[in-house]
Amino acid sequence: MVAGVHFLPDDPPGDIAAKLVRVNLSDLAAKGAVPYGVLLSAAFPRHVSTEWLTAFAAGLGEDLRGFGVALLGGDTVSTPGPLTLSLTALGRVGQGRALLRSGGTVGETVWVSGTIGDGALGLLASTGVLTADPFLVERYRRPRPRTTLGPRLVGLARASMDVSDGLVQDLGHLCRASGVGAEIEAARVPLSAATKVLVAAEPSLLATVLTGGDDYELLFTAPAEAEAALLALSAELGVPLSAIGRLHPGAGVTVRGEDGGVLALGRGGWKHFGGQEP
Amino acid sequence: MVAGVHFLPDDPPGDIAAKLVRVNLSDLAAKGAVPYGVLLSAAFPRHVSTEWLTAFAAGLGEDLRGFGVALLGGDTVSTPGPLTLSLTALGRVGQGRALLRSGGTVGETVWVSGTIGDGALGLLASTGVLTADPFLVERYRRPRPRTTLGPRLVGLARASMDVSDGLVQDLGHLCRASGVGAEIEAARVPLSAATKVLVAAEPSLLATVLTGGDDYELLFTAPAEAEAALLALSAELGVPLSAIGRLHPGAGVTVRGEDGGVLALGRGGWKHFGGQEP
Repeated sequence: MVAGVHFLPDDPPGDIAAKLVRVNLSDLAAKGAVPYGVLLSAAFPRHVSTEWLTAFAAGLGEDLRGFGVALLGGDTVSTPGPLTLSLTALGRVGQGRALLRSGGTVGETVWVSGTIGDGALGLLASTGVLTADPFLVERYRRPRPRTTLGPRLVGLARASMDVSDGLVQDLGHLCRASGVGAEIEAARVPLSAATKVLVAAEPSLLATVLTGGDDYELLFTAPAEAEAALLALSAELGVPLSAIGRLHPGAGVTVRGEDGGVLALGRGGWKHFGGQEP
Repeated sequence: MVAGVHFLPDDPPGDIAAKLVRVNLSDLAAKGAVPYGVLLSAAFPRHVSTEWLTAFAAGLGEDLRGFGVALLGGDTVSTPGPLTLSLTALGRVGQGRALLRSGGTVGETVWVSGTIGDGALGLLASTGVLTADPFLVERYRRPRPRTTLGPRLVGLARASMDVSDGLVQDLGHLCRASGVGAEIEAARVPLSAATKVLVAAEPSLLATVLTGGDDYELLFTAPAEAEAALLALSAELGVPLSAIGRLHPGAGVTVRGEDGGVLALGRGGWKHFGGQEP
């Protein structure tokens, strides 16, 4: 994570530490791994203050303790460039049991955990573009990696990844790795109450929700027979799981709107084919 | 490793990759660990060329293959700052068997592998300050981590680290961690033929040799009864091992010159007490 690229230089240091930890734990969760330790390499500019370092270290320690993960080691160097933080997270998963992007097969259901779009709208809110519920800013600054869910998906899910680039893009990555296509229904993509309010007021934000990234939810596929077990797991863990579509032969990701028309979500916006403009 | 800090921006990309790999494998060797994989996080400036990246990747792959180590994963990001490379090396050592800096005890012999000072003089040669044997520049650019020696020291050595800051400074770190002092004899510190030539021509370079860093040799302590086994190991592996001094009660590192006087090696040079000026 590079200052000015992946976080704002004046973000609270504890939030930066938490994000650094959590985006990496999210990657482990997506593979079905239980985290056990991290290594941190930090390149600090010379002008970094003791106050900043103290707050960062405190936030890092607090977050790692919260997830039961140890700081195993690392390195610190000085840089003439921006503050640059590299965290390597290590986890355990049974040999040959890791959930890969390439494990998907035609006919499987596409599932997603939690709610989608909060991070992207939270980023817009944190930079003042949107006026929104503080919940969304918190979701952007402190993502909640699905560390308890991920390892429990081993044996149930077939392909898995976390949503960091954006739901549609990441499902595209999963499809390419699995050699399949996917169709999802926009109306089945789970939204938080705060995100629903914004999308109702400005329907074009749905494109941001579906493609905006920073969700750190788990996106996975599972055969139909796993549905009952997944819903039971969802209830046990208190983590919402939503079936949003299906894998099909071919390639690419299709998103269907409520009217059955195909939504075309492009760079810098989206277009609506075969139905009404939103 | 940060461009402009830990390497020169116009160093050959393959040399940068090799150094990144080798300084980390040296750390594992110093702990007695057998390397098995690395993760690389790279922050690239936008202007980095495809040619540079191709040469870097080729050099990285070649070096990792040479050491039998796999690239397990990592991350790449864009940075407005200098090229920044963070490599995490993973290795295996028996539980409780890792060689720590803190394992030294009074009376043990201080040993060092290979030759000392080549890296520091190679740096001076690579920047044009010294005219020297290309061997020294190669030693600076492509350190030789003691990956075969390190794991074989488990059970023989008591405290161990690699020499990266400089022999005297690193022995100081080891002494602090072990709660002891050390005395070494400058005449017993092993020098390469190329370094001997330079020190003979300019005796003040001995301070650079003893404090200059970038050696990536192993510095370790062992009880007297391990000497025969260490000399046999040295012969078996073809890695020179030299006994250069001893741990004593107290603190700090004393370096004795050939005349028995104490050499004081300070920042920015050295002074000579109790003997002739060199």
